[in-house]
Amino acid sequence: MASVNLDPGAANLPYEPDVDIRDFIDLQAVMQNYELGPNGALILAADLVATRINEIQEALEEINPDYAILDTPGQIELFAYRQSGPFIVSNLQSEGTTILFLFDSTLVSTPSNFVSIALLAASIQLRLKMPQVSVLSRSDLLGPNLKKVMSWASSTVKLEEALSAEKRGSYELDTTLLRDLVRAGIAYELYPVSATTREGILDLSAVITRQLNQGEENEE
Amino acid sequence: MASVNLDPGAANLPYEPDVDIRDFIDLQAVMQNYELGPNGALILAADLVATRINEIQEALEEINPDYAILDTPGQIELFAYRQSGPFIVSNLQSEGTTILFLFDSTLVSTPSNFVSIALLAASIQLRLKMPQVSVLSRSDLLGPNLKKVMSWASSTVKLEEALSAEKRGSYELDTTLLRDLVRAGIAYELYPVSATTREGILDLSAVITRQLNQGEENEE
Repeated sequence: MASVNLDPGAANLPYEPDVDIRDFIDLQAVMQNYELGPNGALILAADLVATRINEIQEALEEINPDYAILDTPGQIELFAYRQSGPFIVSNLQSEGTTILFLFDSTLVSTPSNFVSIALLAASIQLRLKMPQVSVLSRSDLLGPNLKKVMSWASSTVKLEEALSAEKRGSYELDTTLLRDLVRAGIAYELYPVSATTREGILDLSAVITRQLNQGEENEE
Repeated sequence: MASVNLDPGAANLPYEPDVDIRDFIDLQAVMQNYELGPNGALILAADLVATRINEIQEALEEINPDYAILDTPGQIELFAYRQSGPFIVSNLQSEGTTILFLFDSTLVSTPSNFVSIALLAASIQLRLKMPQVSVLSRSDLLGPNLKKVMSWASSTVKLEEALSAEKRGSYELDTTLLRDLVRAGIAYELYPVSATTREGILDLSAVITRQLNQGEENEE
């Protein structure tokens, strides 16, 4: 297993990446050389990641791992909604690719926030065009609410009921549209994990492996 | 009409805001005082915007405009998917609020990218919990493709056909789910505008005014 940091804007990482884009792109240098403020520099740096795909590839080939886990730029808009994200995802050579989309547990504690993140997940999957697994990260932070949140993923009926019970303004997303989105299956197959308690890590590994193997079979 | 810049990370604005969060939050100072890199500073600055809501409110009251247009932080994740966005949207006093969600014309030129942005729009509306209007910005950049893109918004049949015709990998968003999302009406009512050619500005103003008036009527 090799870890790859693709976030040029990362300040302190809680792990030591085996391959680090910050060895190829220096954010402070970008700010100075292009005379950009922090926001402009982050956008340009995220775009520049795509231009360093060969360096990343070579560094990975030297390690030659069975699996590589890539940590993408912290802000979705710098990666998925710009050219560089889809480009990197499609062009980094591998026998298989799976996107892990994180439902952050602090963002999904109400039914409408849960559906909001599920919609974001679907949006990202359409942009990156790869198999994708939804992961409920930092599951330990939900405490007793974990069971409730997981029920919204496993049962469209429970999710519909929770949305109806939620106090909602009359001007929000059209109720019929919301109901139809839920019934279409917008929120499904969610895997809870906690880096702190290690809960769910084995199950998630199994899902990823199965999905990557399926990918190989389908290509044969 | 008053313009308000709520983006502490904005470097150069193509307009002169009547109220500017950068008068209350200095991004460079945030970087220094909190010893943060550009990314950390942008996140903190975006969060700090919510703490300055009174200053923004007072500055607006001094101007006392009929309408105010607020430019939110450039990256959706710094606003909508953190507490400060929903907080500001709910707590800034006004007789009515409408969110303008921009479909950037460079991001929606293929059917799957179009649906991806429509999903993002729905996700945002669920987070901000306000009436929302979808605007196709920089419509002039689409040239002859504008008609095609607008047809995807006005006709679910045309959008379904375009998605079927699009070359898509077998591992992307489930075909049935995608079809159901389209049929649920995920992409509808899109208003094209161009700041360059002025196309669509009058129509958009009419839509916004109508929506704000409807809001007032519903509250009576």
